[in-house]
Parts: sequence; C-alpha cells; structure tokens
Amino acid sequence: MAKDLGVTSKEENYAEWYNDVVKKADLADNSVVRGCMVIKPHGYAIWENMQQALDGMFKATGHVNAYFPLLIPKSFLSKEAEHVDGFAKECAVVTHHRLMNDPNGKGVVVDPEAKLEEELIIRPTSETIIWNSYKNWIQSYRDLPLLINQWANVMRWELRPRLFLRTAEFLWQEGHTAHATYDEAEQETLTILEIYKRFAEEWMCVPVIDGIKSDGEKFAGADHTYTIEAMTQDFRAIQAGTSHHLGQNFAKAFDVMFQSAEGKQEYVYATSWGVSTRLIGTMIMAHSDDQGLVCPPKLAPVQVVIVPIGRGDDRTAVLEATDKIAAELRATTWHGKPISVKVDDREKESPGVKFNYWEMRGACLRIELGPRDLAENKCLLASRIGTEKIETPLNQVVQSVVTGLDNFQSELYTRALKLRGENTRRVDTWEEFQAAFANEGGGGFIIAHWDGTGETEDAISAATKATIRCIPLVPLEPNDVEPGTCVYSGKPSKQRVIFAKAY
Amino acid sequence: MAKDLGVTSKEENYAEWYNDVVKKADLADNSVVRGCMVIKPHGYAIWENMQQALDGMFKATGHVNAYFPLLIPKSFLSKEAEHVDGFAKECAVVTHHRLMNDPNGKGVVVDPEAKLEEELIIRPTSETIIWNSYKNWIQSYRDLPLLINQWANVMRWELRPRLFLRTAEFLWQEGHTAHATYDEAEQETLTILEIYKRFAEEWMCVPVIDGIKSDGEKFAGADHTYTIEAMTQDFRAIQAGTSHHLGQNFAKAFDVMFQSAEGKQEYVYATSWGVSTRLIGTMIMAHSDDQGLVCPPKLAPVQVVIVPIGRGDDRTAVLEATDKIAAELRATTWHGKPISVKVDDREKESPGVKFNYWEMRGACLRIELGPRDLAENKCLLASRIGTEKIETPLNQVVQSVVTGLDNFQSELYTRALKLRGENTRRVDTWEEFQAAFANEGGGGFIIAHWDGTGETEDAISAATKATIRCIPLVPLEPNDVEPGTCVYSGKPSKQRVIFAKAY
Repeated sequence: MAKDLGVTSKEENYAEWYNDVVKKADLADNSVVRGCMVIKPHGYAIWENMQQALDGMFKATGHVNAYFPLLIPKSFLSKEAEHVDGFAKECAVVTHHRLMNDPNGKGVVVDPEAKLEEELIIRPTSETIIWNSYKNWIQSYRDLPLLINQWANVMRWELRPRLFLRTAEFLWQEGHTAHATYDEAEQETLTILEIYKRFAEEWMCVPVIDGIKSDGEKFAGADHTYTIEAMTQDFRAIQAGTSHHLGQNFAKAFDVMFQSAEGKQEYVYATSWGVSTRLIGTMIMAHSDDQGLVCPPKLAPVQVVIVPIGRGDDRTAVLEATDKIAAELRATTWHGKPISVKVDDREKESPGVKFNYWEMRGACLRIELGPRDLAENKCLLASRIGTEKIETPLNQVVQSVVTGLDNFQSELYTRALKLRGENTRRVDTWEEFQAAFANEGGGGFIIAHWDGTGETEDAISAATKATIRCIPLVPLEPNDVEPGTCVYSGKPSKQRVIFAKAY
Repeated sequence: MAKDLGVTSKEENYAEWYNDVVKKADLADNSVVRGCMVIKPHGYAIWENMQQALDGMFKATGHVNAYFPLLIPKSFLSKEAEHVDGFAKECAVVTHHRLMNDPNGKGVVVDPEAKLEEELIIRPTSETIIWNSYKNWIQSYRDLPLLINQWANVMRWELRPRLFLRTAEFLWQEGHTAHATYDEAEQETLTILEIYKRFAEEWMCVPVIDGIKSDGEKFAGADHTYTIEAMTQDFRAIQAGTSHHLGQNFAKAFDVMFQSAEGKQEYVYATSWGVSTRLIGTMIMAHSDDQGLVCPPKLAPVQVVIVPIGRGDDRTAVLEATDKIAAELRATTWHGKPISVKVDDREKESPGVKFNYWEMRGACLRIELGPRDLAENKCLLASRIGTEKIETPLNQVVQSVVTGLDNFQSELYTRALKLRGENTRRVDTWEEFQAAFANEGGGGFIIAHWDGTGETEDAISAATKATIRCIPLVPLEPNDVEPGTCVYSGKPSKQRVIFAKAY
C-alpha cells in the first residue's frame, strides 16, 4: 500500500509498520532534539488514561504521590557502585546556568562565568536524589513504611531511539518505598508486580509473564529485579514494567538508618518500581494492524465514533439523531467513566475517508447512520477488530455499545494470548535453539534449561541475540521447574527460563 | 512561640512565618540542588487537587493535553528577539551527554568526548519548541484553532528562591494555542483569564483583580499580557496566573503560516498561558495563620480529621464509632468527590498533640468523640477557622460536615476579600504614595493615576519598590477610569492603575 494512503504492512517491514502506525495514528512524532519525542494529543490521551488507572491502583494500596528535583548532583550517582556503572554513560549533563549574547553578534552562547561548581545530571531515575531526602525523613520505625510514588519525566541518552519504546526523554512513574524489614520490602515488590500484571492484562489486554531477572539483567543497584514480559506481533519480548528489591544498598550509600522498636539502629530496606510511556509502544506492538491503531477500549481516547451518512435535506435529521445517540452514550458510564464519543460530521469528507481515518486512530466501535437507517429506526455498528456490520435498533444502541466494548476488551486479550501460545515452545538442543533465533525477526519465547551462570547467559546472547527475559514466578508448565541440562553448556539446570530477542 | 513547637508568628517575621508553615505543615522542603524544592506528599496532594480542577475546566473549553520535549536547542531561544532577552540569563544549559570514570579514581567526571554540537537548555517555558512543532502541524485554516495544554516541569535559575513562590524548578501547566485571527486569539486569552479568576476565587478562596500588564511587565515575546493579582497577608501583590496574546511574533519567528479560507497564506496568531505550583504559595500567603496551614476545603488534602478520645476499655467502642463516621463521610460526595477523612487513632499521642498536628496541616474540620459523647450519641465539631466546638448529634454528622465545608469555603473567601478591601486605597499625591510604601512590609494595593510611560513606571519602582500590577479590566470603582493627573509626573493620565510591592 502506498505510504501516503496507509501504513507499511507488518509483513513487509515490521519496524516501518510500527513507526507508521505511531505517526499516522497521530500519537507521537520525532522532535528536533535527538531521541526526544513529541507526544501528540491523541497519544497523550492514552497516557492520561493509563495514569488514571495506575494511580488509582497505587493509592488503593496505600501509596501517595510526591515530587523530587529533576537535577541530581553528579557526585550522588557515584555513591552506589553498580548504579553509577548503569547510568553514567547515558546522561544529560548540566554544566552552566546562563547564556549571554554572542560577542560576535550571532545569537547566544554559553556564559563561561556561569559554570556550576558541581555538574548536575538530568535524572535517569531518582533513587539517589530521593534517598538523600529520605535520610532526613526517616528516624524511627514509626516513620516506616514510606510508600511514595512520583509521576515525572526522566532522561537517558539513547543511541538507537524509537518512538515510545526507547526515547531519550520519557514519562513514567517511579515508586520509591522504605521498609523496616527485608520481608516487608519483598512483599511490596511483589504487590506492585501484581498491579503491573493486572494493569497489562485487564487494561492493556496484553498477557505478560511475571518473573525474576537474571543477575545480568537486573537493575543497576538492586538486590533483585522482578519484571513483566510481553510478546510483540513479530515475536519478540518487551519488558513492560519492573519492580526492584534494592535491599539496603541505597540506605547504606546515603546512610539512612532508623531506630527499631527494640531501640537498635538499622539500615532501611528499599524498593523501586516503574512503568513508562513505553507501555503505549507495547500496546501498539501487541494489537495494532495494517489499518492502524488497535486500542483496548479501557484505554482508548475515542471508544465510539459516529459517522452520519448522507447530504442535503436529510442531513439535519440525521445529525439530530447522531447527536442524540452521542449524548446517550456520553451519559452512560462504562468501567467508571463516561463513554468517549466523537461525531465525525465533517461535510467535505466521504464516509469511506472517515472510516479509514478512525480505523487508523483506533476508535473501537463505529456507528453509521443514514436517512434510510433513520427511517427504519436502526443504525449499523462495526467493531475495529471485527468484519461485520451489525444492524442495531436505535433504542438498543447503548446496550449494544456496552456489550461491544466488553467483548472488544476480552477478545483483544484472548487474541494476544493465542499469539503468545502459538509462539512459545520448549527447546532442548542447542541446534534447535540457534535455529529458533536464526531469522531477522523474533523467534518467540523459547523455554529452555539454563545452568544459572552469567558466562552461559553472555555466550547465548552473543551467539543468538536472545537474552533471558525472566525466570517465571509461576512455571508455565509444571515440569518447567524440574531439573535438566543447560541447552548451551550441558551442565545441570534447576529449571527452564524464558529466552527471547527483546526490544 | 518557640520554633520547635510551632511557627514564627506572622507579626514577628512574615518571611520566616511563611517558610515555617511550608515546612511544618509538611508541604515542601529545600533540596540539595540550589533553588529546587522537594514537594512532599501533603503538598503534592494540594497540587493534584488543583490539577484535577483546572484540567477539567480546560477540557470543558475544548483544550487537549500533549507533551513536548524538556530540552530546547540553544538557537531556538534567539529566534524571537524579546523572548531571548527574557530567558537567556537564567537557564540551565546541557553541554554533554555522558560521564566517565575519573582517571584519578575519584567518582565520575564529564566525558570531554561527549560534548554536544549544539548546547540544549532546559525549558524555562515552551513557546519555541512548541512553535517549531506547530510549523509541521498547521497548513490550512482547517487545522485551526489548535488548543493544546501541557502539564510539565520547567526551570529558571532563580537567584532568590523561595519555596513554591519562586523556585528554580517548578511544576505548571502551559497552554499554547494557534488561531486564524487576532480576535479569536484575543477571545482565547480572555477565556483562560476568566478560568484562572474563577479557579482562584471559587477553589482557592483568593479574590483576584484581573487586568492587563503594562508593557514593562508583559511576557517576553507577547503582544500583551493579562494577569490575575492576589493580595497576601503582608499586603503585597502576587501574580497568580498570566495569559498572553502573542500576536504573530512566534509564528513569524518559526515561519508558521496557514492557507486561509480565501486561499491566502497568512501568519498564525498565538496565545500562551500558565499557572504553577506558585498557586500553593499564594494560597498559604492568603489564608494561613500562626497555627499553620489554612486550606480551602475544595483543595484540602484532608477535609475532616476525626480524633477518638479516651483509652482503655472504652477505646474499642469509640474507635468503632469513629470508623463508622469516617465510612459515612467517605461515602458522601462533596463537590464531585468523596469527602477526604483521616482518623487519627495513634495510641501514644494525646488529643492536644493531635489537635495541633492537624491544625498545622490544615485539616478543615475536626470531629472529637469520647466515651461520654458516645453515650449521649453526639460528638464535637470544630472548624480550623472558627473558635467554637459545636455539639452535633451522631445522626447529623454528615449533614453538619457538608454544611461546615460549605461555610468554610465561603467564609475563607469573604475574609480574604475583607482584607483586600481594607488594604486597597486611592492615592493622589506623590507624598502620600511614597508614605504608603515606606515601610519594610507591603503597603496594600494603591490605586493611582499613571501617565502611561515606561519612564514614570521605572522611576516609581526605583523610588518605592512598588510596581504596576495591572490595569484592571473592570474598574474597581467607576471613576477609576476618569482622566486625572499622574501621581508621579503630574502629566495627564487616562485612568488609575494598581500599584503594589510584589512577590
């Protein structure tokens, strides 16, 4: 299909297809600043819906929001040894606080007199600046737990940016909690992982595998990291959210101790966890098609588009009818919010152009209504992921839309689960393992035995580009946790883990 | 009063009083990064309430949210001549994108190899980066109007930071709209000003004067600027929100033209407008007292605190009763949201300590309930801004709380309006004008004639530290718009304007 009419097909070029969907569905655009994106209103509306749902889940589990500074003193990064290795190589550094007129008369230049004593970096994540505050907030066990979340922008200087999936600046939430015991922090880490999984599956319609990361893939500074991993339509993995048990690492780095109920001074235990605008990319990768965006109804900016058909004399009556339907739908609550409706009453565009336009932008359901339909007190109802148009009596539109949205939400999840099932398999020989990842594209989830060493992990990754996505918390099949031999080294293995090429 | 018990009194030192309230009410704290604040959960909850109300008002008038990059190429600033003069001298400059291990083994240093070709500045405001995008989004009159808002952090390197009122980094919303005609942009500017005024008065309980800025005080790059101005309890002015008509200045700087319905290429008209976390400081300055935070119920993090009285055997029955009241209140909607309630059931603190604690943190109403009250089926209801405790039958608590919140909201506004009225006066001689501003503190709003020149404005400011806050859109008294003679120069004046010392 010509690019000015639609999007590159998934088959032809998956990477270009993805980029086309993001741009032509009006979700985001590249900016002049390398690696930074502009999130356009239609894309930002998805993020707002995600924020609202997640924020509610965090608050329901006792978390509160706060805001910490954007800039972090350079020296803070070095306080946790693994942390600095993980983030120092990709951060934006502020060195001056003033510009001045160019003495040569060409615009403005950096004022050399305004050099900072210590450079500041734009937060790539906020553990260090936050634990420096917690030091002042925590004295006693009565100050714990501290359950704080922040909605913020962060920056990591990415070499290969890709809209939503990997951008230099992105929006996210980062939770940072403090606890008196290891076990309580562990429980917190898992509570959040469960929220992330539930959000991915029940809101985004994306089935995920929740598991623990290998040491090679854990967060820089964590004791251990939990993850949820999703599958794309080109059979790769996407890490969609992570929840870290930080042990006492940051408490020790920033000297945060508390007096226990028994009167002893102890270091505080920490967790951190986050999901980002990457979730929007994950959702596109999981559901969209060659006609554009497919969006789960619970997160869609436009759940229902109404297209009045016909011109001339009949138009007034048709528009009255479509406005009435729109008003009825907007007065209806679906999953706690009024149904989101657009009436596309543009006069100069044909119905066909409008259908394509709203398919591209991921409107879940479409209602068509013309003079003849009106005369017969009915309309046509079409789903973005269906093929039929269903005749619906006008007095049943609201009920049909509600049912349609319910079905859409469950069907989308089922479809994604089926795709994942068809592209997940157990492999026991190195030849078969290599063959699975030999192609340019993905290769699916390969469930194989691993000897538990970093050397083997590195060797497998070097040979196949596949990495260990996680060790599932719950085995996908019961005998996945029976001992075996490593698919690469032949050494003993305690259990199977998930390998995949990842975004 | 000793500082460890309460706050410095307003009388004693207004600036310290303000700082004490912010810190002891647990709203915000200074951070290690110069001029940047940490917004603590109790303060951030106020911002979330503000965001929700404002966002709803913006959306109800057709605006949508989006997100633009944090970093702006240095050269963009120079494209609008007045704009660069206004912002170049106070911006954080990113010059490098990587740190490296210090060759001398001491932490990390800036990697000289990672110098950016063009420096980037952290947005002090986003006109330039946004209009660079709008250039690609606007071709035809059918793309207009474009009504976009952004919730974001911005950074201005302030020399004299003050929590909430003036910080290097702050949170705000910035609206950026594009229009086909000057008049439509003017209408937009005034629509937003009206929203700001309504929000200040109906949510924050802060009466404001809406007016136009003198050329000396307008936004750098604007054709003209509208403002809302509030009064503090030390009789100064606070600029609480601004709405700018940018004319075609940014469209010309970034070459943004559209084809009109008549087929002509024309430059686009622009507006921008913003309010920030400064509103929290404004609210504190307007209402709080020596006991701590006073917060309007519509924005308060905690509207009702319930303090169970008594220990021992009676405690269980009392706690059951207070939990029941809390549940009833939480099930009650006030102004669209469930009433926000805390039960302070800490065992080790006395009722008196709890009363002080919640007065400091601005809980609007307090319910006290002990075993004797319970036996008589009543409780005591106290208001943060009242002096009496009112006996209330338990079966009337919900209604009494609702009435109490309503009264609180209107009384707070009335009180602030009275303060402003008592400190606003007309002055006609230079001697009297100087005397009004001779003290260290404020001086109120002085309504005086001005000859309309920048020279006089500068001379008055140099002599008295008072500036022109605005030329009111609606005269405060009818004859304020009758001609007169300038209070400073004696030259003819068209109307009176408002002078004040400002934060």
